[in-house]
Formats: sequence, C-alpha cells, structure tokens
Amino acid sequence: MATLPPTRPRRLLPLSLGLFQGALLLFFALFVTYDKPSARAEDANLVANQLYGIFPLFQDIQVMLVVGLGLLLTFLPRYGLSAITHNFLLFNFSTQWALVLQGLLHHFHHGQVHLDLQNLLTAEFAAVTVLISVGAVLGRTSPCQLLVVATCEVPIYLAIELAIVTHLGILDVGGTITIHVFSCYFGLGVSKALFGAAQRPAHPKESPTPRSDLQSLVGTLILWVFWPSFVAVLCQPGDAQHRAILNTLLAMSASAVTTVVASSLLDRDGKLSPGHLQNGSLAGGVAIGAVADMAMPPVAALALGSLSAVACILGFRFLTPLLARKLALQDQCGIHNLHGLPGILGAVASAVAILLASKDTSGSHFSPVSPVRCNASEAAEGQCGDRGAGRQALCQAAGLAVAIGGSLLAGLLTGAALRLPCLAQPPEQLCFDDSLYFKIQNQTESPGPGGTAKEEALALKERV
Amino acid sequence: MATLPPTRPRRLLPLSLGLFQGALLLFFALFVTYDKPSARAEDANLVANQLYGIFPLFQDIQVMLVVGLGLLLTFLPRYGLSAITHNFLLFNFSTQWALVLQGLLHHFHHGQVHLDLQNLLTAEFAAVTVLISVGAVLGRTSPCQLLVVATCEVPIYLAIELAIVTHLGILDVGGTITIHVFSCYFGLGVSKALFGAAQRPAHPKESPTPRSDLQSLVGTLILWVFWPSFVAVLCQPGDAQHRAILNTLLAMSASAVTTVVASSLLDRDGKLSPGHLQNGSLAGGVAIGAVADMAMPPVAALALGSLSAVACILGFRFLTPLLARKLALQDQCGIHNLHGLPGILGAVASAVAILLASKDTSGSHFSPVSPVRCNASEAAEGQCGDRGAGRQALCQAAGLAVAIGGSLLAGLLTGAALRLPCLAQPPEQLCFDDSLYFKIQNQTESPGPGGTAKEEALALKERV
Amino acid sequence: MATLPPTRPRRLLPLSLGLFQGALLLFFALFVTYDKPSARAEDANLVANQLYGIFPLFQDIQVMLVVGLGLLLTFLPRYGLSAITHNFLLFNFSTQWALVLQGLLHHFHHGQVHLDLQNLLTAEFAAVTVLISVGAVLGRTSPCQLLVVATCEVPIYLAIELAIVTHLGILDVGGTITIHVFSCYFGLGVSKALFGAAQRPAHPKESPTPRSDLQSLVGTLILWVFWPSFVAVLCQPGDAQHRAILNTLLAMSASAVTTVVASSLLDRDGKLSPGHLQNGSLAGGVAIGAVADMAMPPVAALALGSLSAVACILGFRFLTPLLARKLALQDQCGIHNLHGLPGILGAVASAVAILLASKDTSGSHFSPVSPVRCNASEAAEGQCGDRGAGRQALCQAAGLAVAIGGSLLAGLLTGAALRLPCLAQPPEQLCFDDSLYFKIQNQTESPGPGGTAKEEALALKERV
Repeated sequence: MATLPPTRPRRLLPLSLGLFQGALLLFFALFVTYDKPSARAEDANLVANQLYGIFPLFQDIQVMLVVGLGLLLTFLPRYGLSAITHNFLLFNFSTQWALVLQGLLHHFHHGQVHLDLQNLLTAEFAAVTVLISVGAVLGRTSPCQLLVVATCEVPIYLAIELAIVTHLGILDVGGTITIHVFSCYFGLGVSKALFGAAQRPAHPKESPTPRSDLQSLVGTLILWVFWPSFVAVLCQPGDAQHRAILNTLLAMSASAVTTVVASSLLDRDGKLSPGHLQNGSLAGGVAIGAVADMAMPPVAALALGSLSAVACILGFRFLTPLLARKLALQDQCGIHNLHGLPGILGAVASAVAILLASKDTSGSHFSPVSPVRCNASEAAEGQCGDRGAGRQALCQAAGLAVAIGGSLLAGLLTGAALRLPCLAQPPEQLCFDDSLYFKIQNQTESPGPGGTAKEEALALKERV
Repeated sequence: MATLPPTRPRRLLPLSLGLFQGALLLFFALFVTYDKPSARAEDANLVANQLYGIFPLFQDIQVMLVVGLGLLLTFLPRYGLSAITHNFLLFNFSTQWALVLQGLLHHFHHGQVHLDLQNLLTAEFAAVTVLISVGAVLGRTSPCQLLVVATCEVPIYLAIELAIVTHLGILDVGGTITIHVFSCYFGLGVSKALFGAAQRPAHPKESPTPRSDLQSLVGTLILWVFWPSFVAVLCQPGDAQHRAILNTLLAMSASAVTTVVASSLLDRDGKLSPGHLQNGSLAGGVAIGAVADMAMPPVAALALGSLSAVACILGFRFLTPLLARKLALQDQCGIHNLHGLPGILGAVASAVAILLASKDTSGSHFSPVSPVRCNASEAAEGQCGDRGAGRQALCQAAGLAVAIGGSLLAGLLTGAALRLPCLAQPPEQLCFDDSLYFKIQNQTESPGPGGTAKEEALALKERV
Repeated sequence: MATLPPTRPRRLLPLSLGLFQGALLLFFALFVTYDKPSARAEDANLVANQLYGIFPLFQDIQVMLVVGLGLLLTFLPRYGLSAITHNFLLFNFSTQWALVLQGLLHHFHHGQVHLDLQNLLTAEFAAVTVLISVGAVLGRTSPCQLLVVATCEVPIYLAIELAIVTHLGILDVGGTITIHVFSCYFGLGVSKALFGAAQRPAHPKESPTPRSDLQSLVGTLILWVFWPSFVAVLCQPGDAQHRAILNTLLAMSASAVTTVVASSLLDRDGKLSPGHLQNGSLAGGVAIGAVADMAMPPVAALALGSLSAVACILGFRFLTPLLARKLALQDQCGIHNLHGLPGILGAVASAVAILLASKDTSGSHFSPVSPVRCNASEAAEGQCGDRGAGRQALCQAAGLAVAIGGSLLAGLLTGAALRLPCLAQPPEQLCFDDSLYFKIQNQTESPGPGGTAKEEALALKERV
C-alpha cells in the first residue's frame, strides 16, 4: 500500500483544518447570530411560507453538489473514495469559508451577521466554484493542495461577483458567467501553473471501466434532474421563476438528445462515449443560466441547449487533445468543455437576448427580468431596467471578459502556490489511487487496468 | 469488441435523431410560446404558490423516471450503461415528441401553444409508457428500434387516453389503466411481433449478479419512495391529494411486506428472489392509481397492495414461464407481472370501489372523486358526478378493454415494423452487451458469466 | 450455496409475516378511517397548504430511511442485498406495527382511528429505532430474529416516548434522546444478550472493500443531505423550523470537516478510515436533535457538531475495541459511536442550553421552544414554558437516564428471546453472506476475502 513520504505533510492537513475550525468557531461566537423570531403571527406565517418555497429547492441543490457531483467524479475506477470524499470536504470547507468572508464583506453593518437560509445558499454557490475548478486537477493533487485552492478561490470569486454583478450589473441568475466560466478558467489556470509545460503520458489508472462509468453517469442523471432548482432558486418568485424552470428543462432535454447525436456521429463505428454523455447532457444547464429568466421564446432555450451540447462534445473530441498537445494543459474532467465553452455560449446568448428583446418592445422589454440579484444592482446603481439594451449587452460582454481574465490570472497564481513542497503533491506513480489517502484493508478487487502486485512493488520501493 | 455490421445503420440513429431535433426547433419556433407574465401582484403570488405546490412533486417524478427506473433496468450485469442511457434518451425523445403531438392535438386553438409545467408533466406521462413498454425487449433491440417504438407509441397513447379519459370518462388519476396496462400490452405486442415464434435459450449474459441485482434494487427503492408523487400530482389539491398520497403509501407498504412473504413461500429453501423484490414491492403503486383519490377506507389500499404483490410474484413464478413456453413470448423485465397484472387488478378495484361507494351513499358518493383529468371529461360530457355508479363502473371496464385491445394491436403492428433490416437489430450473440453501443476502453472486469476471451473471439468472427 | 438447515424455520418468516399482514388488514378494516373531507373551500385550501408544507420533508425522510440508510448498511461486500432488503422490510413492518399500536394507544377515543400523514410520520419515527438498533447485530442475525426485535422494540419505544416526552415533558424535537439514545442502548442490549460472553475472531467476510465502502459512503451522503428535514419536520412551522434547519446544517457541516481532522490525526500515516467518514459526518445530526429549535447562538450548533464528530471517531478508535475486549460486546455498525455518544452529548447540551437561555432572559426564555410534541406535554401537565429552567434541565437528564436504562433492560430481555432455536440464527461460518437469504444464480464475482470454493464446501457440509 502507498504511503506519503515525509512526516510533516501527514499532519499538515488535519492541523490546518483543525485550526480553521477553531477560527470559525471564534468568528461565529463573536459575530454571527440568527434573526430575531417574528413578533406577530402574520410574520411567522410569512416566514413559514417563504421557507416552504425555498427549502425544497435548497435540498435539491445540496443533493446535486454532495451526491450528484460526488458520483460524477467517481469515473476513475481506483479513485472513487477519494474523489467523492474530497468533493464533500471541499464543499463543507468552502461553504464555511464563504460564510466567514461574506459575513465580513456584505453583512458587517452593525457588528452582527444575521444568518439565514439565503446566506447559506449564496455561500454554497461560492463553494460550487471550487468543486468545479478542482476537476481540472482531479487525482493528481493532495487534499492539502485542494484546500489551498479553496482558500484562494472563494475570496476571489466573491470579489469578482461583487464587481460584475453588483457594480457592473450583469444579469446572470443561474451563474453561467459568475460560477461556471469563472471556475473553469480558474481551474485551468491552476492546472497550467501547477503542472507546467511537461506533457504526461496516459496513466494506467486513468481509464474508466464500464462500472465506474455507470456510477459516474448516475451522478450526471442526479445533476440533470435537479439542475432547474439550481438555476431558479435565486429568481424572483412567480412568473420569472416558472420561466426559468421551464427554460432549464427545455435546454437540458435538448442537450441530452443532441449529445447522443453528436457523440455517435463523431465515432467511426457510431458508438457513444460514456464521457460525452456524462458531460454533454449537462451542457445546456450551464449555458441557460444567464438567460433562464429572460423574456425569450421557448425555442431559444432548446437551441441553446443543443448548441452547447455540440460545443461540449466537439471540445472533448478536438479541443482538449489540442490544448494538451500545444499548451500541455491538463484538464482531467474536461471542465473546459462542460463549464467553459457552454458558459461562453450562454454569456453571448444573454447579450443577444437582451438586444433582441429590446427590439421587440422598443428597448424596454428586458425589465421584466428581475432576479433577486438584480435588486442589489438596482440599489447600487439605480439603473437596472432603465439602462439601454445596448449598454446592458455590453455589460454582459464586459462581465464575461472580467470573469475570464480575472479567474485565469488568479488561477495561475494559485497554481504556482500549490508547488510548495510542504503541500505533498502525490508523485506521478501514486496518482489516481485511493490507497494514498485511505486506510484500505485488503485490495482483492482489480477494478482497473494496472495490477495490484505491480503497484505494491512500486509503493514498497517508494517507502524504502 | 463488438461492432455493428454495415455502414449505413451506424449513422441512422444520429441522423434521424438530429433531423427530429431540427423539426422540434422549427415547431417550437413557429408555434410554442410561454404564458404572458401576470399583470397583477396577486396573480403573481398565485403563480408562485401553485409552482411551489407542484414543483417538488414534478422533481420527484423526474427522479423516478431518470434515476430510479434507469437503475432498476441495470440488472443485466454487462448491459448497465446501455440500459440507463437508452432509458434516458427515450425519456427525453418521447417527452419532446409528446409535446409536439399534444401541441397539435389539444392546444392548437389560436395558432399558439402555451407551454407550462403542467404540459411538460403530461408529456412526461406519455413518455413513461414508452419506458415501460421497451422493458419487454430490453437488451435485444437497437436504439434505432427503440426510437421507432417511441415514435409509434406516443401518438397511440395520446389517442387512447383521449378516447378513454376524455370521451369515455374513466377515473384513473394515477394512470393505472391509461399508463400501466396500456404500455404493458403494447410492449408485449412489440415483443411478440418482433421475436416471432422461436423460443430462445437462456443467454449467458442474461443472469444478474449480486452486484447488478443490488444496483437494480436501489432503483426500486427510489421508485418506491417517490411513487406517491406520481399518483398524486394530477389530483385536485387538498383532501383528494392528501388521500391519494396516503392510499399510495399504504398500498406500497403492504406490497413490500407481502412480496417478502410470497417470494419466500414459493422457494423450496425459503430464500428470496432479487427479481421478485425489485418488482413486487412496486406492484401496489401500479394498482392503486385508479382508486387512489376515491372515497374508500384505508384497508382497501392495504388489501389492494397485498393482492397486487401476490399477483406479481405468482406471475413471475408461473405465468412468465408459461407464456414463454406456450406463446414464445419474451418479457425481459417482466412488465406483464409488474404493470399488466396489478394494472388489471387496479382497474377492477376501481369499478368495485365505485359500486360500493354508491351503495354507501345512495349512488352519488363517488362525486368527491374529482381529479384534474375528470374536469376534461366533465367539460366534454357534462355527466361526471351525475352518471350512475353502475354506468361509471361499466366505463372503467370498457376503458380497460379498450386499453388492452388497442395497445396489443398497435404493439403488434409496431413490432412488425421493427423487423426492418435497416433498424440494425443486434444478433443474438451480441445481445445484452454494452460494448455494442459504447466505446469501452478496456474490459478487465468480469462481472458476469461468459468470459471476455470467448466473447472477443465471437466479435472478431462477426467482424470478419 | 448455503442453506438453512431444518424445514420449519424456512417457513417461519413468511408465515408469521403473512399472519401479521392478515391481522393488520383486520385492524384497519375494523378501526381505521380517513378524516372527513373538508366541507368549506377555505378549509380545503388550508389542507392543501399544510400538505405542501409537510410533504417534501416527509419524502426527504423516506429517502433517508429507505435509500440512504439502506446503502449505508451495504459496507459488507457480500451482504449488500441482505442489508438493504432487511432494512426495507423492517422499515415497512415496524411502521405498520407502530400504526397499529399508536392507534390503540393514542387515537382510540371514539372507536375510530383517523389516519393522516402526521400519524404515518410518527409511526416511521418509531420504525427508525428498529433500523438503528439492528445495526449492532448486522449480518449475524436471521430475518426472523430481526422481526422479533421489531415486534418488541416498537411498543417499548412508544411507552418510553410517552413517559419521557408526554409525561416528563422533555424537549427533544429531533429525537436525540427518544430515538437515537434509546435505540442505541436497546441494540447493544440485544447484542450482549444474544452473543453472550464469547469473543469472536474477525470473520473473513467482515472487511469492507473500497467498492462497498464507496457505496456505503453514498448512503451517508444521502443521509447527510436530508438530515435537516428529519430534525425539523415536527417543529412548529415558522421561525422555530427555520432555526432547526439552520442549526442542523451548521452542526453537520462542522461534523464533516471535524471527522476528516480527527480520523487523519488518529492514523499513523495520516490516512482516513472510510468507516470514520461514513459515521462521523452524521454525528452532528444526531446530537443537534435535542437543541435544534432552542434559542441558542449559531456557534453552539457548530461546536456541538464538532464535538460529537470527535466523540464518534474516538469511540471507533478506542471505545469499541475496549468494549469488545472487556465486555465481549459486538457492535457491527458502531451504533454506540454514531447514536450513543453523540446522543448523550446532545442530551447534555440541551440541559446546558436551557440553563444558559434562562440566564439570558431571567428564566423564561426557553418558552419559544415549542415543538409540536411539546403541546402534548403542555396539555398533559400545563407547565411547559412555566416550569423553571432548572427543573426543565433536570427533566432532560432524567429523560436521558430513563431512555438509557429502559432501553438497555428491554434490549437485554429481547436479545435473550432471540436465542430461541426456532428463530434460525445463522451459524458463524454462514454470516455476512447474501446466499443464505437470496437465490443467487451464479457467483463468479469475488468481491471480498474468503473464496467461493471454500464456502461452497462449507455449505455442502452444512446440507449433508
């Protein structure tokens, strides 16, 4: 069985995490409190009704992030336990870290931070960016490195979200630009800076098996089913939310069918690639986020879903190998194909939708688009709804540029920091293997290519 | 690895699917729109509340169909990827196709089809029939053949549903007759016409392993948990819906326990059959659909759940082998035991419940049964609630007969069409194998009986 | 393949279960009915809204108990089918049995028992205790024995719940004391009395594999996500419910991170134990139940979550081996670590929270804590809210003592009854093996240590 070489790194993870938990307790003890209970019965009723409205969507999102995304990442047959555990750990750590930073940023008005389900939800949205980004380096990084990624990415996400949503006023209710595009280029930056210019040969434990592919596909299906909740949860209740749900459903349905078409057409024998299905089916959900609650006809959602699935599959087939060859860019989960390309498509679509909607109704029609987030921008600038459609479309483009540029730069810096030796990056031979991070009693299974005997010899050599 | 023999069929699936996606886009562009946003604040509140009421149930149903049913079908150890993917593809294709046909049928009043969550839900109900029917031919059919089944079955379902619900006025809120009985006999018709009179010996890849059985059982449990949402989603909100949920919960609980009793009693050693558990536990949910919202005592739901589980288990033990021997009828998933027998039981129970309820309250008591669907029939005939109980009971019987006869006939015709050579039915030796439809990198696993070496030799022979 | 030795026990399970189903039908036929439909439209609206409020939480809880807990128990690689099936059977049997007993106990006022979703929910809570308790003897007991446990435990739970919640008036909205502590010591009592003083060597099929550990971890994640629904479902709607959800989310998040810290610190190589993760992540949810809706600052929930995770991991590392060595106490799933220690912590925390809250607001502040259950106690004693904080804290301690003492005693008696030979306890060599309870067609897989050939020889010997 494999071991981590020196003594100190073994303790670095629990000690730093433990320290963080202590700091979190201190911060909560000093600053965080709940809202006071409502005094009047009507208010209590209102609280109950609001809770009933948001809580099922909140639970859907938790299932997506913890169970769905966790399973999606188990496509590496010998790395399932690590993939799902690291996802779970990062989800919790990043949410807690985002709660602290949000508390400092937004809510620190009267010395007390008031915690409610809405705060928790936006903190989880910040955590999502981390979960997406680390997909680029899945299996080749230690938990310590992943925690450093989370520590850096959450504040940068909050800063960029503040810049492009609150100040620039972009419309992006489902997080297409702020979450998907941002986290994709952040992750690619990390990967580039961490792994440098060396091209790596295929690792023997990198190939999925039919069983791990099936498990991963179940994760995809869970994400697919609950995606409308993710897109719609921050919409204005009522018509906008209803429209966001319908648009997301249409986009994802088109993505699923188009993925089968594209994957089958690209193969010589007409066979499907499991990896295409696992990712392409979700591309529509990524793209629709920026336009989900806008006034546009249903056909636009279908078309966007189809287009983004095509972009995703073409990305897997041509762009990922090209980037690996030309730029030596590692992208283990293909986050550029699932989050980058469809995200950019969605951002462009939002600009187009704004321009077209304004033509339909003499330039003022995109005002019914009033997500909750937009209220913040309204308060800040007093211009959402009044500003011209052309200017709003420009804002979308500017927001996209800021998200790509900022995240790439920050990702490169973060990736450089990950090369610190104390962070215990696993050596190439021990990548993609649960036994590096888990006490595994007995490995009589042989789930993937690469025999156990060979590996144990390697581990033994490592240890000596 | 196995390959599809000639060149054209390899491209038939993606090209026809792609063509359909194009046609769908055109149809949506020309005819489909969303409802106008509500003008007044009260209306917006109403929309929000209705959405909060229906959306959690809608999500439950999506989980059932995409994740639960998908997993249930993975009991063939080497065919899991294909089973879950074909289920997912058929779900999306059939829903889209049903949206188009529903648009043409029901909503084509003013040149515009108004899309909302309710429409999508009824389109998904149409898709369910396809997902059930193809269970009869699981593993022996190509995706092209499955798409032809969907193309034929959805319009026939819509026609028969129009005939027996809207015109005949049967009461069937949970789809016992319209969905389960219909799709079962459609599927059996397809299987009979497609595979003809030849009895087939057991295929080496047909036997489940403990692991694939466990995976399939997880699918059953997901279906079991969310079934009440499926039955109750179209009920009148309030008491009827509450009653439908309770009745379904009771019926499914009785099914689960009775399945263990019946399966254990039928085995010489008192052991359970995984297949019995996977299906019998759900039988009560199939049967309860027709009576779920009727005014009947809770004991009736329990009794119906127990009875239908017994019927399902006896079907697996005696009827399926008999039909295979006498009629050479293939029924891979045992849909006749899960959907046919319990469905007929449920239909009979609905007639009995109507007659008994009328006796209790001098013939007028079954009027509190007012599902949403019944409103359509009221509008059409103005007699729901007034017509005598005897006549209504007769209607239930007539509806059952129409559903069985119509579906069997249509299924036979559809199955005959599936014999077209261009649809690329897989040869017997390559059935039940993912490698025919998926690019699988390396198969070092040996999940089931039937060695890889032997199979590769076979595939090689095929290719030459 | 393994067989049950004599003829009679093979039939004991289905016959006794069948008899119970018959008795259940009779009881329902004679006594159980639904509420009358609401006469007025406003009432119907109220019913609909209440249903929309509780039903999503109810479904979450069903997913937890049937899918989540079922998967969590599949960590034994050759016992997955049995573990998940026995859990499902016990869930249904115990719920039905609890409905009967509850009907006799609480609702038997006018000769009729009115069934609604609330009754079903409390019956499922009674069933939870059985599902937890049998974790102590997982894999070493026959289904007949498990049914006897359920038959004994449900009435004892109802009695103790009546004593400590209704009469003593303890506050425990999430079931920390009434469900978790009770069922833990009941299960340990059963295990002690059943297996006696003999220490058992490790069984070759007892070790999890990476794959079965991963499957079990997915179960943990499902439980983790939906736990807030379990804790909050019986809270007063509105602020108390909102607070209970937030407290549970915080406690579980702290548990998840602290589990990684503690598990990693305790290992020489800094590796994680899958078993620690599977259990420690949930410890916060167990502990928070007693205080979830109390007026306490968020930091308390975080601290309680962290502490209980530490207690759970230390229990696995030190206490379980100690108890096995000194008391020969078998605890297969480690229920003492997941339910016992965190439960006691939570009970103590509730007493402390009551005392502290009273200081903040001169002794009357814990009155906003008004779970639905508390109303029963109010009715019974008219003192909830008025009684002094000191007395209430004493009540919590007394309730804990009654729960531990009563359950331990009752568990020991139940365990003694399980030694009856007719209950067909499996011999040691055939433990942890699905083939004893399931018809398994072909076992070409070798998922765990312990060869099939050896086992078949054993089974053959058994049969002769």
